[in-house]
Amino acid sequence: MDLTHDGCGLIRLDDDECWRFLAKHSIGRVAVVHLGSPMVFPVNYALDGRTVVFRTGPGTKLGMAAAGREAAFEVDDAYDVLETGASVMVHGTLQRVTATDEKARLVKLGLRTWAPGNRDHIVRVSPAWISGRRIPPHSAAEGVSSNAV
Amino acid sequence: MDLTHDGCGLIRLDDDECWRFLAKHSIGRVAVVHLGSPMVFPVNYALDGRTVVFRTGPGTKLGMAAAGREAAFEVDDAYDVLETGASVMVHGTLQRVTATDEKARLVKLGLRTWAPGNRDHIVRVSPAWISGRRIPPHSAAEGVSSNAV
Repeated sequence: MDLTHDGCGLIRLDDDECWRFLAKHSIGRVAVVHLGSPMVFPVNYALDGRTVVFRTGPGTKLGMAAAGREAAFEVDDAYDVLETGASVMVHGTLQRVTATDEKARLVKLGLRTWAPGNRDHIVRVSPAWISGRRIPPHSAAEGVSSNAV
Repeated sequence: MDLTHDGCGLIRLDDDECWRFLAKHSIGRVAVVHLGSPMVFPVNYALDGRTVVFRTGPGTKLGMAAAGREAAFEVDDAYDVLETGASVMVHGTLQRVTATDEKARLVKLGLRTWAPGNRDHIVRVSPAWISGRRIPPHSAAEGVSSNAV
């Protein structure tokens, strides 16, 4: 069994590679289930150890965090010239960070938001698992093969 | 009532602006609910009128499409220098495109995938609604205000 490939030609990232990938980026997307429907929101994030933290205002994400709901957190990059890229998904639960000293410490990690307004709440994604895939370069497919069409 | 702002200092995009934004980009994220849990996947996409189409292989996304499940499709961009950006979310249902002539037409839209392997299936997101927000420039907030911490 080849542990570095996922069977679809993608290169599987191990946990350490996934966390290093997340450490190099700062914008991700949080997906949650709200009233039975999927929702997805872009956020600026930082890592706190092997957890993801982001700031938000009152709303869906904060409500989900207060309720300790499940979330999928995704980060990807893409290089147009090489037509390659990678993506990492963290699956876990949302938690609201409420302790004053903890919040002050997290802000010092460089936790910021570009969006205006009151986004003084901090939410943590505590992972249950993490997975990542990298597309090998030069694998772009333009057409759909004739047997499938 | 100011229809161009969302009450949090973000500029609301109207439907035409949302579709123009989607037309300018080619990578988005599809969020679905799989066995009760949120999942999010990056995809290369194209527009077909006011629907989103993407290619995929056998797996979660295709299974969701075959079942006509709900999805949230999100595209964002970010400009580090200005610390601004925008995001658009399409909420709708997934549908598998199976007609041969329809698939051939969609491939001609430039519908491609960077990922290798058998990704000969085409999925359409038929929107129920679309929404978008733009962050005004120079609104980045570094700290958390003292009354919230």
